[in-house]
Amino acid sequence: MLIVKKFGGTSVGNTERIKNVANRIAKEYCAGNDVIVVLSAMDQTTDELLDLAKELNANPPKREMDALLSTGEQTSVALMAMTLAGMGIPAISLNAFQVAMHTTAIHSNARLKSIDTERIEHELESKKVILVTGFQGLNKYGDVTTIGRGGSDTTAVAIAAAMHADSCEIYTDVDGVYTADPRLVEGARKVEQITYDEMLELASMGAQVLHNRSVELAKKYGVELVVRSSLNENEGTVIKEVVNVESMLISGVAGDKKSARVTVTGISDIPGSAYNILNILANNSINIEEIHQMAAKDGKEDVSLIMSKENVDDTVALLEKHLKKLGADGVDVDREIARVSIVGASVQGNPGVAATMFEALYKAGINVKMIGTSEMRITVYIEEEEMNKAVKAVHAALIG
Amino acid sequence: MLIVKKFGGTSVGNTERIKNVANRIAKEYCAGNDVIVVLSAMDQTTDELLDLAKELNANPPKREMDALLSTGEQTSVALMAMTLAGMGIPAISLNAFQVAMHTTAIHSNARLKSIDTERIEHELESKKVILVTGFQGLNKYGDVTTIGRGGSDTTAVAIAAAMHADSCEIYTDVDGVYTADPRLVEGARKVEQITYDEMLELASMGAQVLHNRSVELAKKYGVELVVRSSLNENEGTVIKEVVNVESMLISGVAGDKKSARVTVTGISDIPGSAYNILNILANNSINIEEIHQMAAKDGKEDVSLIMSKENVDDTVALLEKHLKKLGADGVDVDREIARVSIVGASVQGNPGVAATMFEALYKAGINVKMIGTSEMRITVYIEEEEMNKAVKAVHAALIG
Repeated sequence: MLIVKKFGGTSVGNTERIKNVANRIAKEYCAGNDVIVVLSAMDQTTDELLDLAKELNANPPKREMDALLSTGEQTSVALMAMTLAGMGIPAISLNAFQVAMHTTAIHSNARLKSIDTERIEHELESKKVILVTGFQGLNKYGDVTTIGRGGSDTTAVAIAAAMHADSCEIYTDVDGVYTADPRLVEGARKVEQITYDEMLELASMGAQVLHNRSVELAKKYGVELVVRSSLNENEGTVIKEVVNVESMLISGVAGDKKSARVTVTGISDIPGSAYNILNILANNSINIEEIHQMAAKDGKEDVSLIMSKENVDDTVALLEKHLKKLGADGVDVDREIARVSIVGASVQGNPGVAATMFEALYKAGINVKMIGTSEMRITVYIEEEEMNKAVKAVHAALIG
Repeated sequence: MLIVKKFGGTSVGNTERIKNVANRIAKEYCAGNDVIVVLSAMDQTTDELLDLAKELNANPPKREMDALLSTGEQTSVALMAMTLAGMGIPAISLNAFQVAMHTTAIHSNARLKSIDTERIEHELESKKVILVTGFQGLNKYGDVTTIGRGGSDTTAVAIAAAMHADSCEIYTDVDGVYTADPRLVEGARKVEQITYDEMLELASMGAQVLHNRSVELAKKYGVELVVRSSLNENEGTVIKEVVNVESMLISGVAGDKKSARVTVTGISDIPGSAYNILNILANNSINIEEIHQMAAKDGKEDVSLIMSKENVDDTVALLEKHLKKLGADGVDVDREIARVSIVGASVQGNPGVAATMFEALYKAGINVKMIGTSEMRITVYIEEEEMNKAVKAVHAALIG
């Protein structure tokens, strides 16, 4: 078997943990498997480097930021190779240059394009454990790029796809994907299997287990993912295209407070008003999560936008500048909202699911401000301070 | 003018110092010069990485050690590029892959072979300051090598040679090359000019200003070196092929305690005894600094070897194993010796110099155990505890 394993920054955060991970890798290797390991930077290393950089330049060039941050994973893989060598396991570290891990040219948020598998194959043939730097790549100019925070998951999936690995295991500090945040909901259960699409919906709705792009890539190349803990031997969650029919109706309940609502009020009810708003924001690279257009009253209508809280200030400034062009009265902001979502392949075909969700929210006395749906998701927007109560109530009613 | 500047780990040891060096670079750049800067790892970084490695594997593979340590210089150059960018100076960091800096294949002590100057030339044409990682290279397998501690000096000289630079400045924490260690000898003076050969003799005799290999390389390619302080604007010392005739008779007095003496006693006076000893040591890669063969007494002779203290244990074990083959009685060790050397182009042709040196030692009551000479050097071996007294006495007599 060819197994790709990815360990995050917490799993290699100090020498004791590096040794634990090395033991885990050794076990897999000694069972006769070919093992490729993708590592993140040691916990805190990235933050320390960011602090140093900020002291020297508040707005450092992204190319140099990438050059700087990429040293973190290089340190991890070299240390792991040494640890394995000390245990008698032949191992070799490979950085983005050596692999080579080709990406697009854009710094700090590049996308993986292709992987030269020749060196990896060569080293596997001589029965070495391969340790690859996550998070980083090489653009066509020969410069180091990084692929966004959490990008090591994507590195692992890309290697698994390129090498046609039998398995791709993402190790983290939780046992797998849960039906809700277990720190929040006592009855939260680990999900045994979940589809790529459900995982993507859960992730975009606040479940922080996997880097979204890694799931997209796994779906595209049919790489079966396993999310499991680096701290125990528990089974973890399998993410794949089709899951057992007996799987739960609802895969999970997610809540997050990262979004805010910006409402443009009193827009003259003329065609194209929503388009005009979106056009202004798109031209300024501001991403909208959802858009809601209320029915017009007295020839005027409101348009509400849900977006990341960090984009609110820029958005308000932009919209106020264009109020006249938009034919609107003003801009309202509500930062005190939270999202609670249920995700599951069966959400759409089962009207009972939505009914149960709203009944639970009503009984808990929670006021729903807005509703959004997709093929396998129902999201409600509520008061921020009621999020935890809402997640608990919905989880209890639908999952137990 | 094309200027190559090298700053060591102390000069970039924290963000304040990085800013100081950036100011210095900016000044040179703004005067209209092309500037290439070679940097070492930030002070302590290398030691911290070595400690981490040691915790994980007492005897780590050298390939992985090189991969690990090379992150130190990558961090320095990226941080410096950001700092310069913040000051409005266009700058770009280049690592060993990007340059590319080709070396021999051997890890931890590789030798520079060639430099691809294309990328550097290209970036210079677009008027950028080039920041190059010192100390590291790339071997034919595409793996990172390092060229020995202090190797950044050599990197700078190699780039100056390849780029036909007008000047190569090595910045350090002293003002230049001194006639003796100024912490030890009050009257020590900065040397204005010194030849490559004198510098090589001084360096191998304990003066720690420059990496020896960098001076050899500078001599080979005729690169004029300037050693100066990163803390002030003083002139520094120029190292070149021919110096002013008015230059001092003696360039410097150096002392060090790094060596020990191992004596093989009672060797039967047969041809080849010294050869046999050297052969055994060479086969075990033990380097000998000097060898002294005393006149035979009663058909038996002693052979004394001067070597680095760290090689003594291995040497004694080896020689004792081969005592019979060597036809010797035993092995004596004297770890309590120091070397004091005077270096200068005029040493050989001026018998008065040697006389003055020995008179000074005699008057100071210092017993000379052994003497070694070369074309431009006289070295005495004395009691370790008398080293400082000897250096002062010789310096006072010959330099003042």
